[in-house]
Formats: sequence, C-alpha cells, structure tokens
Amino acid sequence: MANIKDVAKLAEVGIGTVSRVLNNSGYVKKSTRERVERAVLELGYFPNEIARNMTHQLTNIVAFILPNSRLAFFSDLIFYVEKSLYEHGYKLMVCNSGANRQKEIDYISMLKRNQVDGIIFLTSNDIEKEIDSSLPMVSFDRHFDHIPLVACDNYFGGQMAAQKLLTRHPHKLLFIGDNAQGEHTSIETEVTKRRKGFVDYLDTYGFSNYVIVEYPLGDSTIPKEYIHQIVEQHQDVDGIFAISDSVASVVLRELINLGKRIPEDVAVIGFDGINSNLNIGKQLTSISQPTALIGEALVTSLIHKFRGESTKSIILPVGFVPGETL
Amino acid sequence: MANIKDVAKLAEVGIGTVSRVLNNSGYVKKSTRERVERAVLELGYFPNEIARNMTHQLTNIVAFILPNSRLAFFSDLIFYVEKSLYEHGYKLMVCNSGANRQKEIDYISMLKRNQVDGIIFLTSNDIEKEIDSSLPMVSFDRHFDHIPLVACDNYFGGQMAAQKLLTRHPHKLLFIGDNAQGEHTSIETEVTKRRKGFVDYLDTYGFSNYVIVEYPLGDSTIPKEYIHQIVEQHQDVDGIFAISDSVASVVLRELINLGKRIPEDVAVIGFDGINSNLNIGKQLTSISQPTALIGEALVTSLIHKFRGESTKSIILPVGFVPGETL
Repeated sequence: MANIKDVAKLAEVGIGTVSRVLNNSGYVKKSTRERVERAVLELGYFPNEIARNMTHQLTNIVAFILPNSRLAFFSDLIFYVEKSLYEHGYKLMVCNSGANRQKEIDYISMLKRNQVDGIIFLTSNDIEKEIDSSLPMVSFDRHFDHIPLVACDNYFGGQMAAQKLLTRHPHKLLFIGDNAQGEHTSIETEVTKRRKGFVDYLDTYGFSNYVIVEYPLGDSTIPKEYIHQIVEQHQDVDGIFAISDSVASVVLRELINLGKRIPEDVAVIGFDGINSNLNIGKQLTSISQPTALIGEALVTSLIHKFRGESTKSIILPVGFVPGETL
Repeated sequence: MANIKDVAKLAEVGIGTVSRVLNNSGYVKKSTRERVERAVLELGYFPNEIARNMTHQLTNIVAFILPNSRLAFFSDLIFYVEKSLYEHGYKLMVCNSGANRQKEIDYISMLKRNQVDGIIFLTSNDIEKEIDSSLPMVSFDRHFDHIPLVACDNYFGGQMAAQKLLTRHPHKLLFIGDNAQGEHTSIETEVTKRRKGFVDYLDTYGFSNYVIVEYPLGDSTIPKEYIHQIVEQHQDVDGIFAISDSVASVVLRELINLGKRIPEDVAVIGFDGINSNLNIGKQLTSISQPTALIGEALVTSLIHKFRGESTKSIILPVGFVPGETL
C-alpha cells in the first residue's frame, strides 16, 4: 500500500507539499497541486480520514435536526445551511425528527459520541436536560439557556402584518396560527412572537375586534380540515394574518371556495416569504424571513462555538413581500 | 471516566448485555435495556464512535450528492431517503453539487477516504473515471456501468403524457424540456426518456404535428424568460407536455398572460406530481414519480451493495395525477 513518501516521490515534491495539498492548507502552486493530486490518484493513496480524526477528534460534519425537511421553508434553509457549511469546510447531515423527542435525543447523542462536530437544531420538545452549554450547538427559533439562538424578528413581523392589515380599515381581523407543541408539553418558541407582535400592535392602536385561533401543532402542518372549519366559522372577518405561507395558501383556497373575493372581501397576509404550493392564481402578500442570512448566521455561530469564542443570539430582520392578496 | 464494566455493574447485568444494548444487536428485554440505558446516561459512558469505527471501518453515514436540494422534487426525495436510511440505522449527509463537476468529485473522494459508507448520487457531469464498481454507490436517473440505477419509468411516463394529450384530438403539440448538460458535455440521463416515450407514442399513432424544444440545462431550472419566449413563439399549439411540474407552472402562467383558457385553448401536462409553486388557480395534471418508493429503492440498493450482494437497476412505475389543466 502506498504511503505519503511514495506520493511525494512520484510527484517529485517534498512530503510537506503533499501534506499541504491533502490538508488544503498553505500555498501550493496550481501545477504542483495537480501533480500531487495525480500521484495520489495513481497510487490510490487515501489517508484514512477516520484515523486522522482519532487525533483531531473532528469529523467536519454538522447535523441539522429539524422536524420536517420537506416543508418549503426548511428545504430552503437546508440549502443555505449546506452552502455556508461547505464554504467553511464542513458537511451537512440532515436529521428529520418528525418532532419526536426520542429521535431528537438520539441525534443529540451522536454529538456526545463524537460522530458530528456540532448540531444546529429546531425542536418543540422538552429536551433541556439533554443539552448543556459545553456542547457545540446552535438553536433555531427556540430559546435555550446558554445556547446561541438564531431567529428572524418574528415580533416585528407580527407588528408589520397588523400594520399592513390596518391600512385597509378592516371591520374584524383573524389570526390563525399554531402553538408549537411537543409530544407532552406546550413550548414557547420564537414563532409565538408573531402572534404577540400582531396583538400588541392592534392593542396599541386601539383595534379590538379580532379573533386569535391557535392549533396545537405536533409534527409539521395544521390539518386542512381544521383551517376549513375556522375559515367557515369566521366569515365576518375581512382580514387574516396566517402564521405561515403554507397556512395562508390553504386559507385562501377555502375563502375562494366560499365565494370570497381576494382582497376585496378578505385580505390575507402570510409569513415566510416562500409562496409554496400557492394554488390560487394570485401572488401571496407575506412577511419574509431572510433565509440565506439565517443559514449563514446558524453556521457562523456554530463555528464561533467550535473556536471557543463567545457567542450571542442573533435576530435577523424580516422583509415585506408585496402581493395580490392585501 | 466510566467504562463498560461500570455500566454493567450499575445496571446489574453482564458486559455482553451492555454491548448488545449499545450495538442494538440481539435480544434484550425491554426493562433490562432501559436499565442499561439509564446506567449509560448516569455514568456519562459514551463509547467513542470514532474509535469503534477504527475497527469496523463504518461511519453509518450515507451521502446524497445532487444538484440542488431546494427543488421541490428533490426536497421530497431527500425526506424519503432520510426516512429509509434512519430505519436501517444510517444517517444522511446532503451534498449540493450545483451540478459542479469538481464539487461532485470532492464529495466522491469522501467515500474513498472512508468518511461515508456509501453514496447516492445524481449527476449530469462526465465523472465516469472517478467511480468504479467496487465503491458502494447507487445512481439516481443516470446510467453508469456496474453501478445500480434507480429511476422511475420515464419512458412510459412520456408515452402516457402523449396518450392523455391525444385523447383531446389536438391540432398541434409541443414538448418543452431540458437536455441535462454538464459543465463541458451533454449527458444522457433517464429523464431524456420522457421525450423519447412522448415522441415514440405520437409517431406510433401517426400524429406528426408536434414541436420539440429542449433547453440545455446546467445547474437547476430552465429560465423563465426562455419559457416565455417559447410559449409566445408557439401560440398555435393546443397541447403542451412539460418535462417537470415546475416548468409546467411557468408555462401555465405565460399561457394565462397571453389570454389562453386552460384547458379549453391549451391543455398542459407536467411531470413529477409535486405541484410546487403552481400559481395559477388550477390543479396541474401530471405524471407522478413514486418518490417514497424511489427513496426506499435507493437505500435498499445501497445496503445490498454494502453486503456485497448482487444489485441490479430498479425502474419504478409512474402514476397519473388527474388535474384541471387537461
């Protein structure tokens, strides 16, 4: 079996140069690098990554634990997290928990077993006891003591939704949301602030004719039947703030089925800025999350953790996506 | 630091039982398993996964190399691949190549360096030389010698699209597709068979008034401007087969902007069965890929490879998704 000396000899360079090429560290002239790479391929010399990790205790893998990678917003976020990790020399492991507490704990234990270098996670379960501040973890959308948090400014997003709806001088408003809920308990996440910002803004401006409806959310999305029922029950509202674009799209479908004109009869504003599966022939008006920035912030926070640098929570600005539903 | 003997002592079992619990092998009574797990947690005993891998040479990680995880079909496929891997005790690494050849080669080299156990991949690049049949790899949608392939029956899907459009007794048909293309070369993938099945069916039934348009595809999706131009140029067609649902949704938007009634003036059928971002107020008629089955087949093929069992290519049946556009 070939060793590093054979590679150096064949490439006609020193061992140090081979090492620099293999570790991608320090300057190596392009033609030299190519010669080393050819020699590596020719001799079939592959330093055993695992053996190397034994010394470094590094895998260069980061796990992203989340409820459901299929949801459009998460699919986008995964894309940006992977992009940012790749730029920093890390690889992404995607771990769908289905909001299952035991599955989340299993994944976290990978970290304790040195199978990944760090974890980005989003959970609605009661897992405080499973994590401690010494572990390289970053949380998305949920506050944990001593773990850096990344989220968008959900509170301001909720305020913005209220402000936009109020410009239409509505008669009655409806908020349709979900109350993130783990298997055994109701958990407060940053997403809850969408409702708070919305309600606070309405209260501040003395608008009191509104209804708040929240579905206790488990795995992934609010059932369509539930939204159908809510929209049918509240036909006197003329403005709706939906907690996500995917909820908004179901709301819109129901409104159209009830013969409502959008936005003349009912105005609708969503959240996320994803526009997924919006099957109604109109562009949804929405509050957008800065998905690319969130992905980048999650990764850089984690890398600061790796380096033992102090980290703090990062709240990123939301945007307004003008559409045809408000 | 606690060792396996401490765990066995605290749990009041033999070392063999602890080992069976940790390796998840052999029968252990539920209450015993729980006692061992409690002891492991209490003592903070975590066998170093990396050290264990030194012996087994296994990481239990599978990489999925694909152009772009954000596209709705891939986002779905990733979900099912992860689900199936998890059920078999493996974890998923998502590797977006952006169709970049060098990035694909970098990811494949992870396999050679034992950083992952196997790879599921989808590429349009000329990377035959980088892989050989000894590597545990499975290909999606692209044929390589000695590497098992998983795909849906794209040819039959193309035939089905032609058959459905012909039932409307069209005057003129249009196929709008992409010609998968790597950075330097045009590559034949299984997807090409959608066009072949379509054309063969029309030819067999003596229908000759059709146009085939193919965009040379690089990274991810056909530009909207290109679709706009094609739809505008071919206003005499009354039936369109689009290579994917995402292309179909842009086609539909353009047709509506041109004042066409769907399906009265122009019928449209897509491919994938995903209905993503379909922003036209109608349910798209489509040929569906069996995404869950594809995910499962990719994983089981790879596991057969791991075991050194013989593997062969798997072609899975497509479905018809009735909609409001045909």
